[in-house]
Parts: sequence; structure tokens; C-alpha cells
Amino acid sequence: MKVTPYEVKGEVNYLKLVKEFGLSLMDEKLKRKLKGIRLVELGFFFAHRDLDKIIDEDFAIVSGRGPSKEIHIGHLLLFRLVKEFQNKFNSYVFIPFSDDEKFLVKDLSLEEARRYAFENAKDILALGFKKKRTEIMIDSYDLKQDVYNLAIKASKKLTMSTIKAIYGFKNEQNVGIHFYPCMQAAHILYPTLKRDLPVLVPIGIDQDPHMRATRDVAERLGLRKPASIECKFLPSLSGEEKMSASKEDAIFLSDDEETIRKKIHDAFTGGRDTLEEQRKLGGKPEICPIFKYHQLVVGSDFKLIEEECRSGGRVCGDCKEELCRALIRMLKEHRKRREKIKVEDFLV
Amino acid sequence: MKVTPYEVKGEVNYLKLVKEFGLSLMDEKLKRKLKGIRLVELGFFFAHRDLDKIIDEDFAIVSGRGPSKEIHIGHLLLFRLVKEFQNKFNSYVFIPFSDDEKFLVKDLSLEEARRYAFENAKDILALGFKKKRTEIMIDSYDLKQDVYNLAIKASKKLTMSTIKAIYGFKNEQNVGIHFYPCMQAAHILYPTLKRDLPVLVPIGIDQDPHMRATRDVAERLGLRKPASIECKFLPSLSGEEKMSASKEDAIFLSDDEETIRKKIHDAFTGGRDTLEEQRKLGGKPEICPIFKYHQLVVGSDFKLIEEECRSGGRVCGDCKEELCRALIRMLKEHRKRREKIKVEDFLV
Repeated sequence: MKVTPYEVKGEVNYLKLVKEFGLSLMDEKLKRKLKGIRLVELGFFFAHRDLDKIIDEDFAIVSGRGPSKEIHIGHLLLFRLVKEFQNKFNSYVFIPFSDDEKFLVKDLSLEEARRYAFENAKDILALGFKKKRTEIMIDSYDLKQDVYNLAIKASKKLTMSTIKAIYGFKNEQNVGIHFYPCMQAAHILYPTLKRDLPVLVPIGIDQDPHMRATRDVAERLGLRKPASIECKFLPSLSGEEKMSASKEDAIFLSDDEETIRKKIHDAFTGGRDTLEEQRKLGGKPEICPIFKYHQLVVGSDFKLIEEECRSGGRVCGDCKEELCRALIRMLKEHRKRREKIKVEDFLV
Repeated sequence: MKVTPYEVKGEVNYLKLVKEFGLSLMDEKLKRKLKGIRLVELGFFFAHRDLDKIIDEDFAIVSGRGPSKEIHIGHLLLFRLVKEFQNKFNSYVFIPFSDDEKFLVKDLSLEEARRYAFENAKDILALGFKKKRTEIMIDSYDLKQDVYNLAIKASKKLTMSTIKAIYGFKNEQNVGIHFYPCMQAAHILYPTLKRDLPVLVPIGIDQDPHMRATRDVAERLGLRKPASIECKFLPSLSGEEKMSASKEDAIFLSDDEETIRKKIHDAFTGGRDTLEEQRKLGGKPEICPIFKYHQLVVGSDFKLIEEECRSGGRVCGDCKEELCRALIRMLKEHRKRREKIKVEDFLV
């Protein structure tokens, strides 16, 4: 198993990661306090750091997006969690778009990355974030002086050796990449600086090294350390551990009905080779990406679905058809809401 | 001899530096075009790169300031050159204050560096820059999005290896220092990007490596390479090669009459040990900082002064007294003009 911010390889042992990274598993007390937040209830967000310390306070959520492509279902589900937190706790939400970083690491212009930022922002905001409690920032478009200054202050606390140790950057890489972690720390710490609020950051567990660096910087700047809530990977449609926007096997929000049907139809499942075997032996939901998406998107009683699958009473076609319908309906509604979004309303 | 942006040591051989750095000496044709610009006529600004290529066009001047202290006479003389250029060519002048960099390299807070930026700006603007043709920027106070974006673009063109080779930074130093050259390149290239003007940068010859890096970046960004006009060092009052703001032997704009008299009185000169010897052998103006300041500040016929000194007809006390009077008068007038400056008027 290899899990870094830049690579996920092998079969992931989440409990081992929790231990290695010094995280805590979500306990019953915390789960009760997060009742109704679907991605927590489903066990998708399963670990955290210091969430128990801030949960009874007014806290902010920072959830950024590196815009180098359209966003896919996985991204949307992450931001749905943020939205559910905002609904439940009336949290202030800050969503920074690091088009500068994407420009630095990808083969695209700053202007292209900025265009993706605006497009992605529309998709994210279409989830229904509250205008008065939500702020976005696009690094190359409306960088705040306070954020830049915070990045500079962070950059004085981080030696190049530390950056290289945490992120593995090489001297052959550009200078900008080396500086970006300071901007990211500034994004995360901005609500603490500006509004004196503790911050919660929802992240994929592979991004945890970033959190550790930022927590260290926070401490050295005399700011409160941000908490995190960390999630498992959403598998790709071909059954790989982590859905990737650079692969063809993710479902993008812009996919039309036909594309969605084709992608789902072609997807890997935990089903048997033949209908007969499936009826006799039952499927393997634990390795099935369709089962996972079904849980997250269709929203029906997944314990029941799991039983049906294992017992052979349900075949892959059933799940796929239900998922297709739910996805198509969800995306149709999403697009309607998206059209009404004015990104500028959230650029404070 | 050692001349780097961070250290000047030994006796400086300027002709050797010109050759090493690939600069050109100011020729007669160029000197004619710069007639009336005192620091050029005195041979203080003596070398350049590509100035001949832009001198007949509309060009901008970028002259920054790293504000970690009060400014001294040497700084003021540099900006007087910029002012003379603006008078003669009606050039657009951009003065960026890199308080962020000073914060990163010095033991002071960002807020302290910013305070120096405002104070220094008052002193510089008191020289009488034209409001409509002059713009300042304080990095930690009103960083322009265009400048940040340009820095990010520059940072994609510079590998960490290149930065380390040019600036000699070590991994034990902070990340921010490594990124700053990108900001500096952005400062210099901003008028080219924003106003499509070629840029002239007046600098001390020890800062030439920065120019070479920026010219390289400009080319790679498809922007016109900036030209430079480069000056010799202004000696310190104790006779060292380069006046330094961190030493006690520079004259600061805030020095009172008594302090100036004492500093000048105590200054090293090219005079002989006794009055008798001076009358007999004459002084050595070529090693005399007082002679240099006399040239620059008093403004009388320096050929005559030099003759008088060499022939023994003039003693150090004469020069010192004339310099004191001129300095005190100059600073008195400067302070009057300074009081009327509103820095905000120049923050566009």
C-alpha cells in the first residue's frame, strides 16, 4: 500500500493509515453529534483529527478545489458533506480555488485554470450554499491581501528542507510548486485569522500530510490548529481504489444521459460472471464500485441492498439501472440549479 | 574582489564587472541623450544593458525599495536619478516596496516592514514625482492581482535549481525567500504587461544577477526584456566600498543637524595626517568618501574641487563644512516637502 498526496497504490488499509497518521476514528459520541450527515453515517468520512475539540463551538469549514478539469461525482459528494455541515451547524464556509497551483503542476495556462475555477465554482455552489455564510476565492482572480500575507508569514516558518521532506519536491521542479503549500496553509487558516473561528477541513485521507504541515504552521504563527475530517477513497468505475478526474472512468457533471448509461453499463462490479452464478453465490458488494455509488447516490436502505446482493436476489443490472436513473435525475436537477448561480455573488 | 547581491568585498574593479556581467559602458551618444541627468554626468551611473535600445521610445522605470530601515542619502540619490529621468522623458515610474521580502530575510515583523514601507515611500515621493505618471505598490498592503499572477507565471519558468544557482539560497532557509525572486521579476515586468512599455531598471551593479534572471524570465514569458542602468557604489563615511543602511556611518534622512555634523566630522577622508602634509602633498580625492558626497550633494564644479584638493589648496575641513551645510539645507527642504506627501495618492 502506498498513500501519498500524489499517489495511491495497492489495497488500502484504512485502520493502518489512521494509526500511521495519528488520526482518531469517529466514535459513537461524535457520530451522534453528526447525526443526519449522510457521508458520516455511511462510514465514508470515518476518521478525524481534533473534530471532537471544536464540534461544540462555532466553527468554519474550509474546503478548497484545485480546478484543472470539470468536477466529477466524487467531488460533488465531498462538497455535499460540507453543505450538510453548513445546514446542521450554520457553519461559515470558505472555498478557495487554487487555479494558481493547477497552473503550476499541469500543462495548462493560468487563464484556462481560472476558467475551470469559475465553472467548478458554479457546480459547487449549485449545491445550495448559503450566500451569507459562504465565501469563495479564486487565487488568480481575487486573491485577498490577508491570504497572501498569511502565506508569506507561513513561508517564513517553513524551511525548504521541511517542504521537500513533506511534499517530496525536487530541484528540477519549478519554484512556484515549492511555495504553494504556504498558500494552502493560508487558505486553511484564513477564517481563524479573519473571524477568530476554529477551522474544520474535510479531506481525502491521502491529503493528510498537507494537514499536518498546516497544523504545524498554525501553531508557530500562534493560530489555533485546524481540525480535519477524513474520508475513504471513492473507487473508480473500473474498480480502482480512487476515482480520478484524469481518467475516463469517472462520472462528470457534464456527462449526458447516454454517456452516463454507457459508463455505468461498462463499469466493473462485484457481480459473478454469469447470471446463474450470481443467483447461486451472490455478489461481492465490498469490492463493487456500483454498490458504493448506489449507497451514495440512490440513497435507499443500503443494508437491504447489500443483503439482496449477497443472497443472489439482486443482479448487477438492477443496481446499475437504479443508479443510472438516480444519477440522471440528480444531474438534471443539478444543472437547473447551476444555471441560476452567479459566482460573483460569492466572491466577497 | 567579491561582488554579489549579498556581499561586496575587496577593491571593486568596475571595468572587470562590466565585462563579467556582459554590460556596456555608457558611450558618448548615450551620454548626449541623457544630458542633464546629474548622476550620469558624474559617471556614477556608468554602465547599462540595452538602454540604447529603448532610449528613443516611451519607456517605464521600475525602481523598488526593500524597506527594513529608514532610507539614507545613497537611496535618495538613486531615486533622484529616477526623478531626473521622469523629468526629462516624462517616463511612467513604478516603485514597488517589497516589505514581504524584508520580513522574510530580516528579524522584523511584516507589520514593522510595512511601516517602513510607508515611511520610505514618503521620503521617496517627496522628491517630487508626478502623480499622474507615478505608481507605488506595497506588497503586503495593496498587492495587485496582476503582479501576483505574473509572479506565479515567472515561478513556473524557474526551477528550484536555477534559483539556487543564481541566489545561492540553502535548504535551511525559508521557502518564502526562494519564491521572492519571482515577485521581483513581476515587479519589474508589470509595466510591460500592463502598459506595453519597455522597462528601465536603475540598480547598483551588485544587483545585476537579479536583472539577468528577470531578463531570462521575460523572454520565456514572451515579454520584452527589461533594460538596466547600473551604478557604482556610494562609499560609506568610514571609507568602505558600499554605504550600508545597517551601519552607523550612513547619513539618514532623519538625522538632525548635530548628528550630521558629527558623522561628517568623524568621516574618513583622502586627506593627509597633518595640515602641513596636506598643503605640501595634496589630498587623495579618489579614495575620499567626502569628495564623492561633495560631488553629489553640493553640486559645485567638482573638477575645480578636485584640483584644489590635489594641489593642497583645499583642506578636508573645507569640504566637510561645505558638505554639512549643503546636506543640512537639503534635508531641511526635504522634510518640508515630505510633510505634504500623502502616500495614498500614489497607491493606484
